[in-house]
Amino acid sequence: MDKKEIILNAASEVFRRYGISKTKMSDIGRESGFKTSSLYYYFTTKEDLLQQMIARDLAKIRESLRQSIGKMSGLRAGLKKYLITRVEETEIFKRYEEFFQGSVISPPLRYFLKQQEREMRKFEHEILKDFVINHGPQYNEQADTIVTLILGISMKLSVFRSFDNDDMETINQKVESMIDFLFRDYKGEHRC
Amino acid sequence: MDKKEIILNAASEVFRRYGISKTKMSDIGRESGFKTSSLYYYFTTKEDLLQQMIARDLAKIRESLRQSIGKMSGLRAGLKKYLITRVEETEIFKRYEEFFQGSVISPPLRYFLKQQEREMRKFEHEILKDFVINHGPQYNEQADTIVTLILGISMKLSVFRSFDNDDMETINQKVESMIDFLFRDYKGEHRC
Repeated sequence: MDKKEIILNAASEVFRRYGISKTKMSDIGRESGFKTSSLYYYFTTKEDLLQQMIARDLAKIRESLRQSIGKMSGLRAGLKKYLITRVEETEIFKRYEEFFQGSVISPPLRYFLKQQEREMRKFEHEILKDFVINHGPQYNEQADTIVTLILGISMKLSVFRSFDNDDMETINQKVESMIDFLFRDYKGEHRC
Repeated sequence: MDKKEIILNAASEVFRRYGISKTKMSDIGRESGFKTSSLYYYFTTKEDLLQQMIARDLAKIRESLRQSIGKMSGLRAGLKKYLITRVEETEIFKRYEEFFQGSVISPPLRYFLKQQEREMRKFEHEILKDFVINHGPQYNEQADTIVTLILGISMKLSVFRSFDNDDMETINQKVESMIDFLFRDYKGEHRC
């Protein structure tokens, strides 16, 4: 693990412990085992560090999502895998919710979050659309509609997971029944 | 309009103007035209007022949602109407987001919001499930799955509306194509 990664992990730990607004760069320095002054080589401010942490976590999520449909061949199986992966991966947002409790989100951070969210949505729409077009050619014309449905399902699943505390077994069953209903007329495994 | 309603409307206006944390009961008194002391007859604290405002707004939304599928006979038409109504009605949440900007949400309020959200979700699941069972008897066994799909669609539509600023025309088209795809094998107008 490189030094920057160690610092970000230490920061994550102290954010969880004290909340973001009460954390000082010196707390992060102490937790990471590095001199506070050396943190500024990587991060100009605490807010910069937070933004880099979020960007790193989102990049990891994108990579997992990409892999989840990379190796699958069937439309239904691929989309199920994608949805399960997405529910698992986005549990990290629960941690951020904890970080932010009792903290006011500054306007620049709010802007950054909206921007990241927009990019994430664009990324998801694009990889899912490619996948649908490649694996279910009979649905080509409805690809955008299908992707929107899948993304709607993923939002609802996140609510089941984080608010209703559904276990992954239950999430799995819901994914199965929704995708099977959605593609109840799907025939065979088309490949390109 | 009764006095309580006048006070809540005045409060909504000052919350929008100053944000919740900076608003004082005396600001609400001034805006409403009533003596501040008389406000306490209806509301014990500013937070109580806020909770009552939220409860009132959610009750209105539930009423609109109920009406949206009350008169419709077809499965597809009813669900489309429901989704459009839901997107329109929940624009009110944008106003609350504005209220809360720069304010910390207190733990009791957070608890109240989660509780309200849970009740709302339960309400929506129930009326939609009844509707699906009554209007598309061929889907009876999948009623829960379908309702979950519809609620997922509604979440995604709210994102389109509030983040991507989709106009209602665009929302309408998305609703059309999603519901038509979802019930592409739906035959006729069954009634009970």
